[in-house]
Amino acid sequence: MTSPSAAGSDVVTIAGAGPVGTLLAILLARRGRRVQLFERRPDPRLSSPERGRSINLALAARGLKALERADTLARIIPEMVMMEGRQLHAIDGTQTFMPYGSRDAEVIYSISRAHLNNALIEAAASYPEIEFSFDMRCTGFDVPSSRLLLQDAGGAARTVAAPLLIGADGAGSALRTALAGSGHLEALESPLAHDYKEFLIEPREGTWALEPHALHVWPRGGFMLIALPNVDGSFTGTLFLARSGTPSFASLSSSAAVADFFHREFPDVPPLLPQLREQFAAHPQGHLATVACRPWSAGACVLIGDAAHAILPFHGQGLNCGFEDCLLLDELLAAHADSPAAFTAYEAARRGNTEAIAAMALENYQEMRDTVRAPDFPRRRALEMRLERLFPNRFIPRYSMVMFHAEIPYAEAQRRGALQEGILDELLKRAAGSGEDPRLLAQLLTGAGL
Amino acid sequence: MTSPSAAGSDVVTIAGAGPVGTLLAILLARRGRRVQLFERRPDPRLSSPERGRSINLALAARGLKALERADTLARIIPEMVMMEGRQLHAIDGTQTFMPYGSRDAEVIYSISRAHLNNALIEAAASYPEIEFSFDMRCTGFDVPSSRLLLQDAGGAARTVAAPLLIGADGAGSALRTALAGSGHLEALESPLAHDYKEFLIEPREGTWALEPHALHVWPRGGFMLIALPNVDGSFTGTLFLARSGTPSFASLSSSAAVADFFHREFPDVPPLLPQLREQFAAHPQGHLATVACRPWSAGACVLIGDAAHAILPFHGQGLNCGFEDCLLLDELLAAHADSPAAFTAYEAARRGNTEAIAAMALENYQEMRDTVRAPDFPRRRALEMRLERLFPNRFIPRYSMVMFHAEIPYAEAQRRGALQEGILDELLKRAAGSGEDPRLLAQLLTGAGL
Repeated sequence: MTSPSAAGSDVVTIAGAGPVGTLLAILLARRGRRVQLFERRPDPRLSSPERGRSINLALAARGLKALERADTLARIIPEMVMMEGRQLHAIDGTQTFMPYGSRDAEVIYSISRAHLNNALIEAAASYPEIEFSFDMRCTGFDVPSSRLLLQDAGGAARTVAAPLLIGADGAGSALRTALAGSGHLEALESPLAHDYKEFLIEPREGTWALEPHALHVWPRGGFMLIALPNVDGSFTGTLFLARSGTPSFASLSSSAAVADFFHREFPDVPPLLPQLREQFAAHPQGHLATVACRPWSAGACVLIGDAAHAILPFHGQGLNCGFEDCLLLDELLAAHADSPAAFTAYEAARRGNTEAIAAMALENYQEMRDTVRAPDFPRRRALEMRLERLFPNRFIPRYSMVMFHAEIPYAEAQRRGALQEGILDELLKRAAGSGEDPRLLAQLLTGAGL
Repeated sequence: MTSPSAAGSDVVTIAGAGPVGTLLAILLARRGRRVQLFERRPDPRLSSPERGRSINLALAARGLKALERADTLARIIPEMVMMEGRQLHAIDGTQTFMPYGSRDAEVIYSISRAHLNNALIEAAASYPEIEFSFDMRCTGFDVPSSRLLLQDAGGAARTVAAPLLIGADGAGSALRTALAGSGHLEALESPLAHDYKEFLIEPREGTWALEPHALHVWPRGGFMLIALPNVDGSFTGTLFLARSGTPSFASLSSSAAVADFFHREFPDVPPLLPQLREQFAAHPQGHLATVACRPWSAGACVLIGDAAHAILPFHGQGLNCGFEDCLLLDELLAAHADSPAAFTAYEAARRGNTEAIAAMALENYQEMRDTVRAPDFPRRRALEMRLERLFPNRFIPRYSMVMFHAEIPYAEAQRRGALQEGILDELLKRAAGSGEDPRLLAQLLTGAGL
C-alpha cells in the first residue's frame, strides 16, 4: 500500500506506447507523476511509416474529449479528416449520403493510427516526467514481487520494479496472457467468423477519388467493404468477409476469383483500385475478436484499453473507449492514495460500460453490412431525427449517444437505445401518419420511462 | 479587498460576450466561480447569422491552446478550415503557394467570428455557474462604488454591483472610453490610413472557387486583397486600401471606377465576383486602428482583449492574443485572493507582449502587401527554413514563433526575430553559397546571442 504523501512521486510503469498508453502517460505527467513507458516496437519517430498497412481509426466525442484534457488535440487536428456521414454504394452504382447526426457538430474524424501515435509520442516527449524505452517487449508481471518482466531487442530477459503497472499493450496483450497463465485472471476471446483485408485507394489527379468527408460503405448483407479518407488524398478500404462458405476469403483463392468477386459485388471499386489483385495477394488477412477478462487487475497491475476489453471495429469506438478509460483511471488514481483501491473503483465504474460498447459494436456490424439496406431503414432514421428535434436530450438516437454524447455512459446509451427501439417499432407498426402527432410521441416516451 | 475564502464564491461580471469574454467566463466557471455576462447584442442563438458581413478570424497555436484548456476545441473543429500557407496571386494570374511553416502541424485555421462566438456561447450555457444577459449595453463603471452602468434594449439605465468586473467589450470598448473620461486611464488610438471592405466570393459548382486550404493574397505594394475560406464553400475577400490618394477608396467613387480597378489590379477576381459592383456599393468601408491604454485596470475593473489593446489584423493574432489574455488572467485571479493584486501582476506580465504583437501586426501589413513580392523574399524564406532545419528550437522564423509556438511570448518572438533578421541580412549580403556552410551559420547564431 502506498502512503498518500509518496503517491505523487512514485513511478508509474506503462506497458505499451500505443495511443492509449501514451495518452495516459501524458495525463499522469500533468499531475506531476513520473512515468516509464515500455514499447516493443522501435521508436516510430526514427522510422518511416509503414506502407500498405495504414490502419484508420475513428475519433468521436469521447476520444476528442480525452485528447483535449491532455492538451494534445490541437496538434492532432491536421491529421484528421472529417466524416459527416455514411456514403452508401448500391450495387448499381447509386450513392446515398446518410448524415451521422442532426447537428453540424455531429461528425466524426478519420485518423491514421500511425499519425496519431506519433503525434502523441511527440507530445509526451515534451514532458520531462515521461521516459520511453522502445524495443522492449513486456512479457509478464510477477504479482508477489511487483516486477515487470521484459525482453530487449536482442532477446535478453530483464525485470524492473513496477510498484504501479498499467497494461496498455493492446488486444493481443502479453500481460493479460501472462496474468491469465498465472491464474490471476480469466480471459475470454470470442473470435468473429469474419476476417478483414485492407486496400489502399490512391489519390486520383492529386485528390480523393471518392467524396472525402464521408465513411464509404458497400453493404452487401453477409459482407461489406468500407473506405475511410486519409489526409494525403488516399482512402483505406477494408473488406469484411466470412472466413469460409460462399462468398468467403476461402472462396477467393485465385486472383481471377478476387477480380470476379469485386466486379460482381462492388462494380464501382475496381476502377479505383487498379492494383486490386496485387494488393489482395500481398496484404495480410486480419482476424477480429472481442476479448473480455476478469478481473482487470492483479496486485499492482491493471489492464486498460484493448488489453482489458478489445472490441470489434464496427462502431468506431475502440480508440474512443480506450481514451475514456484513461480519463477515468487517471482521475481515480489521483483520488485514491492506494492504487489497488483505485483499480477496484475503476473496474466497478467501468466494466458495465465496456461490456455495453462491446455488444453495440457487434450489433453495428449487422447494421452496417445489412440493415442500412432494409426498406424501412430510411423511414426509421427519419423518425429518429424527428423525435430528436421534438424532444432534444430526451430522445437521442443510440448511434448519436455513443458517438456525440461523451456525457452519456455507454451502458446508459445501450439502455436508453433499447427503450427507444420499442418506440420506433411501435410507431412503424402504426399507420404511416402516426409519427406526426407530437402528443402521441410524448406519451410513448413517457410510457417507456424516457 | 476580497478575503481568500470569499474569492471562490464572488460573482465575476464580464462586459461583452464576444469570443474573449465568453471563453474567460468558461475558464472561471471551471474553477467554480459564478459569472454574469452582459452583452449589448441580442442572443445570437435566437437569430439567423448576418449575411454580407462574414468576418473571418485566424486561429493559431495560442488560440487553439486556450480553447483546449477550456475543453471547447472539439466542438469548434467542424467550423474551422485549415490554411497551410499563402497562395499569392500575381497580376498576370500566376499563383505561387508559400507554406506557413516547415512542419505538417504548422498550419492555421480560418473560422467565422459568428460561428466561433455561437459555439462558445453554447458551450458556456452548459455551465450552471454562467448567466447571460443579452440586449444590455455596458456604458460605464463607477470606480468608487464598484457599480457597472448598463442600458437595456429600451434605453433605460440600470446599475449593478460588480465587485470584480472584466471589460471584454472589444476594440470600441465603452468601458475604456468611460474610464478614460473619468480620468482613470489614458487611451491612445492610432488609426491606419488604410480602410477595408469585405466581399463574399460564392461557391462555384457547390465547392470553393479557389484552393480552399490557403490564405489567398493579391499583394500590390500599396494595397492588397486577401481571401479566407469559409466552411460553406465560400470565401471572404477583403480589400485593404488607402482612404485617400491614388488608388484609394476615395478614388473608387463610381461603379465603373471599381470595376476598372479590379480588372486592372486583380484580373482573376471579377470572374469569381459577378456581384462585385453591387457588393462594393452595399458593404461598409471599415476603419482600422491600433488601440493602447494605460493602465488596464481601475479599482475593481480590468480590461482585456481588444478593449485593452486592439491590434491590426495583419498577423491574424487579435483573437489568439485575446484568448492568451484569458488564460493568464484566469491563472492570476486564481493565484491572488485580492483581485487588484491579480490585475497588477497581469498587466506587469502581459503589457510587453501585447505591445510586441501590436508592432508585429503593423509590420506584417508591409510584408503581406509588398515584401512577399520582393526579389530576395523567396531566397530569404528558403534560408530561414534551412536554418530552422539545421538548428531546430534555436532558429525559428519569427512568423512561426508567433503563430505556432505558444510557449514563446510575443515579446521574446520579437526580440529573437530582430536578432535573426541581422543574420539573414548578413548571409544575403555574402556570396550566394555562404548559406550552405553550417559552421558559419552556427557562428553567426552564437555571435547574435541565439
